[in-house]
Amino acid sequence: MTEVAVIGVGMTRFGRYPETPVTETGRQAIVAALEDAGVRFADVQAAYVGAAGQGMTPATRVVGEVGLTGIPITTVENASASGSAAFREAYQMVASGECDVALAAGVGKMGRAMGALGADAEGAALLMAQGPLPPAGLFAMRARRRMHDLGTSIEHYAQVAVKNRRHASLNPYAQFQDEISIEEVQAARTVADPLTVLHCCPTGDGAAAAVLASRAVAERLGRSPMITVAACEMRSELYHGAGIPNGDITTLTARAAYERAGLGPEDIDLVQIHDAFSVEEIEYYESLGFAPEGEGEKLIAEGATEIGGRIPFSTDGGLLSRGHPIGPTGLAQVWETVQQLRGTASQRQVEGARVGLLHMIGAGGVCFCTVLKR
Amino acid sequence: MTEVAVIGVGMTRFGRYPETPVTETGRQAIVAALEDAGVRFADVQAAYVGAAGQGMTPATRVVGEVGLTGIPITTVENASASGSAAFREAYQMVASGECDVALAAGVGKMGRAMGALGADAEGAALLMAQGPLPPAGLFAMRARRRMHDLGTSIEHYAQVAVKNRRHASLNPYAQFQDEISIEEVQAARTVADPLTVLHCCPTGDGAAAAVLASRAVAERLGRSPMITVAACEMRSELYHGAGIPNGDITTLTARAAYERAGLGPEDIDLVQIHDAFSVEEIEYYESLGFAPEGEGEKLIAEGATEIGGRIPFSTDGGLLSRGHPIGPTGLAQVWETVQQLRGTASQRQVEGARVGLLHMIGAGGVCFCTVLKR
Repeated sequence: MTEVAVIGVGMTRFGRYPETPVTETGRQAIVAALEDAGVRFADVQAAYVGAAGQGMTPATRVVGEVGLTGIPITTVENASASGSAAFREAYQMVASGECDVALAAGVGKMGRAMGALGADAEGAALLMAQGPLPPAGLFAMRARRRMHDLGTSIEHYAQVAVKNRRHASLNPYAQFQDEISIEEVQAARTVADPLTVLHCCPTGDGAAAAVLASRAVAERLGRSPMITVAACEMRSELYHGAGIPNGDITTLTARAAYERAGLGPEDIDLVQIHDAFSVEEIEYYESLGFAPEGEGEKLIAEGATEIGGRIPFSTDGGLLSRGHPIGPTGLAQVWETVQQLRGTASQRQVEGARVGLLHMIGAGGVCFCTVLKR
Repeated sequence: MTEVAVIGVGMTRFGRYPETPVTETGRQAIVAALEDAGVRFADVQAAYVGAAGQGMTPATRVVGEVGLTGIPITTVENASASGSAAFREAYQMVASGECDVALAAGVGKMGRAMGALGADAEGAALLMAQGPLPPAGLFAMRARRRMHDLGTSIEHYAQVAVKNRRHASLNPYAQFQDEISIEEVQAARTVADPLTVLHCCPTGDGAAAAVLASRAVAERLGRSPMITVAACEMRSELYHGAGIPNGDITTLTARAAYERAGLGPEDIDLVQIHDAFSVEEIEYYESLGFAPEGEGEKLIAEGATEIGGRIPFSTDGGLLSRGHPIGPTGLAQVWETVQQLRGTASQRQVEGARVGLLHMIGAGGVCFCTVLKR
């Protein structure tokens, strides 16, 4: 396998852009990633675009805005993890030696995605199978279960939302940048008891992109620091659960990623996760190997997962505050991790960051774990 | 690169199955492909499902009906070529050595796909850009252009429809199996002048699948004859055309496939193409290298592209008569080519077939050319 480097990243600030088509947000993110990489679009040999519910062939529509060079261009979809899937396919193309330079992009416009879900009977049935208020209802039940079993308090979950918003307040690309308090989280309107709207990620629009290249090409371009992909693993669920995978699949995928990278949790300097709901983050502290089972609460209570703490999680604000337009989210994690490993994360900088873990799950029961290192 | 074999294929007869979800047609095709390959689902290490307009995460919904083994499962979409894209991704995973056994499937339910297109403003705009009656309008204009430039007659096009229906009459998996005459083609209702409905492929539902494996695994399984992938190339258009790629992109992609396979048109024994409209087939005779430019009509007039002729095209009936439910179509081409190369195509058998060429295009401007050989 060829060693693969991430040589450029780009993204739009996530938010509400009702008048802007995904072809335009996608174009902006791709152009930014190419400029960051110091390559021309003509150097790109394959492109994958992650998108869910964005109509027919978003990949060629988006990439076609940047250039027409005859390369393979394919849309990939794994629900919330569609951007992670695009990254993984581009990674495979470079790792296999099929390409020297590949592009991964993700685009999303949530109003439309939700409309497409609603218009589709099977998609709606899938969501309905997830709980009374899918997916918030499912995660509310998971919160209640843990509160019952382990004595987790709603304030623990609220602390996650507060921390991630604090991180987002330092990130000009985050959808929400105003700090919030535990009291504000708890006083917000209830979406699915015990979760208020501030325990839930927003819907939104946006795009993100990454340029991947073989280490040889990255060296020729003089990329420094060199950021390489130590692992890019994907797994799907082993049982018919509630439609959204839980900690078990995270455990499975993280184990595969650690094994492939030859690293363990003790080697990781920062983590980006699928914190679509506050309850998830505390579960993943454990399933990613950063806390013993049943002791995840300690990490948030002690501030260990804040920037400056022992193992910062969601340094860009996470899905909860940076935003989660579905298609681009996994690539926004790549964007943030690359900034951190380059030491260009400004006020969000994790001192001495050398290894980042990225975790994303998608409805249908899939999980991606990627390790980037400098 | 690891040499890749196609060790099993399965498909449902294409047609109208309004009461059958794609999870069920998909399951049937995958189970048939696994049985044909002589492997269990537990042996499959990665799965790709091609689908367009089938709601969120069709890949995990379809593959989840067969088993839950934790493998990577991703949906890919390239409009009409979505099944070809699934095949290509599965091929890459085996060719790169990442997997020993990979599954490619495609599913489609056209009513829904068309509904999704209509519900999506950008998708509708894309189609509208293709002509007054997209996509039939576009191909009607291409037919008119060629008739004006080269003196092609509408009867030449009708002969394509008649030939492909004759092939379909020998294929129990074809959507339409009743032979038709040139007079019937011309007397049918007009869709986009000069094309009647019998010059156009039907909409429909169905699924198809293929199991790919490394040559080493295929040998261990005792697969005989051994059918391998000599090339699996994809290209996208080099200019903003009318949305559906024309002969130029076919020329480009075929050239790449011939080069990769180390073969030329003279080595090909049979061809499956994207004959969504009769006008296409005569163009592709030329752009795939089987007739000089402007002389494609001679092949259909002389019967060269019938089973028994010099270079049979669309031996299973093609999109025109075997059917074209979008997602599975590219994999139906694999199914047919494998039958032919194995010598199990019954009344459709092309004597001594050793090398098959598969061609598929997709809206958005993409083309796939694959070469399978025994």
